[in-house]
Amino acid sequence: MPRTETSSGLVHGADSRVGIIAGGGALPGTIAQSLKKQASPPYILMVEGETDPDSGLEDYDHEVMVLEDAPSLVGRLRRQNITHVVMAGEIKRRPRLAAMRPGFGMLRYVPALLRALSSGDDGLLRFVVTWLEDNGFKVVGAHQIVPDLLAMQGQYGKIAPQKADWPDIEAGRIAAEAIGALDIGQGAVAIGGRAIALEGIEGTDAMLVRVKDLRDHGRLAGKRRGVLVKCSKPGQELRTDLPSIGPRTIDAAHAAGLAGIAVEAGGSLVLNGPEMIARADALGLFVIGLPPGEVEHGQ
Amino acid sequence: MPRTETSSGLVHGADSRVGIIAGGGALPGTIAQSLKKQASPPYILMVEGETDPDSGLEDYDHEVMVLEDAPSLVGRLRRQNITHVVMAGEIKRRPRLAAMRPGFGMLRYVPALLRALSSGDDGLLRFVVTWLEDNGFKVVGAHQIVPDLLAMQGQYGKIAPQKADWPDIEAGRIAAEAIGALDIGQGAVAIGGRAIALEGIEGTDAMLVRVKDLRDHGRLAGKRRGVLVKCSKPGQELRTDLPSIGPRTIDAAHAAGLAGIAVEAGGSLVLNGPEMIARADALGLFVIGLPPGEVEHGQ
Repeated sequence: MPRTETSSGLVHGADSRVGIIAGGGALPGTIAQSLKKQASPPYILMVEGETDPDSGLEDYDHEVMVLEDAPSLVGRLRRQNITHVVMAGEIKRRPRLAAMRPGFGMLRYVPALLRALSSGDDGLLRFVVTWLEDNGFKVVGAHQIVPDLLAMQGQYGKIAPQKADWPDIEAGRIAAEAIGALDIGQGAVAIGGRAIALEGIEGTDAMLVRVKDLRDHGRLAGKRRGVLVKCSKPGQELRTDLPSIGPRTIDAAHAAGLAGIAVEAGGSLVLNGPEMIARADALGLFVIGLPPGEVEHGQ
Repeated sequence: MPRTETSSGLVHGADSRVGIIAGGGALPGTIAQSLKKQASPPYILMVEGETDPDSGLEDYDHEVMVLEDAPSLVGRLRRQNITHVVMAGEIKRRPRLAAMRPGFGMLRYVPALLRALSSGDDGLLRFVVTWLEDNGFKVVGAHQIVPDLLAMQGQYGKIAPQKADWPDIEAGRIAAEAIGALDIGQGAVAIGGRAIALEGIEGTDAMLVRVKDLRDHGRLAGKRRGVLVKCSKPGQELRTDLPSIGPRTIDAAHAAGLAGIAVEAGGSLVLNGPEMIARADALGLFVIGLPPGEVEHGQ
């Protein structure tokens, strides 16, 4: 069972201020909105070239940071009196090491950073968490600020999987867990009872475009339906990089001709839930939360 | 250790005639050429829409078969007095079941066929092997006709992997074996010590184009080199669908910015070896055969 720590309101008190390190997608905006509603407006560090143009993040106190300036993160967060940090949204690019200038405070982390850079996304994120916490920041997960982001178990929306979809759900889950165990990716598409596409660093949307292309080119002839499955990695750092789905995922899955989406409850995020459900219902896709995996998750 | 059965000249005697069921790529032509040299010209069943236009297969006795006519295979082979069958080359499309007309002789195989169709490529190929052998044909592997197709252990060409390439080779192999164990694919690309792309049914060339795109879009910034690894699946039917590399793979790997290619010795095929090596040497890529996996292979 993943530790979910659904205690909301972690970020209370006049002294606390949340900094969001914002990558792409809808998640950073969702968190910012929620904090604003909680009367605790965040400070946003937008990673250059990664945040969505229509994210609305410019409406908050913010600055734009070049990825290679990551070593300056601690100083930037201190200047804004940040106490809590959320890392949210995909950062697709990886920093060019040669262009980075670690300050003195960073030097003792360099060996760990180099190890982390070669050990997969999760290793890298763990490193950043350790580095920030060593410097006195509390790193929290998106779901600790917006608890209802966390995928629940059971059916979303009006549409249930058909009996014939379950072999796809099962095959997709086995594949997604296998590649998750290797810290490679978090998603797979299964059609006709077998996994046919696996997510590497290209991401879920690119994988779904690939499935659409395969179908358009007759490579899946006679195979209808099919399922996208997303799972957290065994031992995944739940405060970062949880697999997520949202309205755009529904559109991409529909374009790929899939029948639905299955995510791991407690180990995945659902963004813009009401909009996502409405879209899924309108397009005839099912969305379900699967029981969490047996594997113990990290913290 | 895979059973390689490198006994050449399996196809001797005035009574034997080899039929090649030909899909895409260079393999069917290579086998046909070799048989012609052995004074045993083959008969070619070209699968419509799958064989390469420049394969030269039209120069042999041949017919073109629509994929959905597969149930007529036994009759077609008998009419040509075929004794041995080789299945060679990728068949990308899957037959539309609704368009198939199984004859009476085929009916008892329908339940096994339906099971096979949902159990991955290897399951489907095993079904075809069983069906053909039940009907008196001897199914042989490409390497049983052209033994030197089988990848050998050690370095091909002039270029050796650098020390820094070994973590990529190791990570790629672990990933390729993991997805092979799930009967999904046979290849992976690892860069910077981790697998970043996994081969589904799109195939190796499409995966390499994806890696090229990721690199072009800065998703691999600061990561140079990288390796394509191809392995056979645990328990793979060695007479069909062995992973293969050739001159085109070198070009695609080079376009993706990779440093080299590693294949499993004894469980992969090397097509147009001399041309492939010359291309790899010219472009500065290494090609090596890795020791075969520990897992017992099927027959």
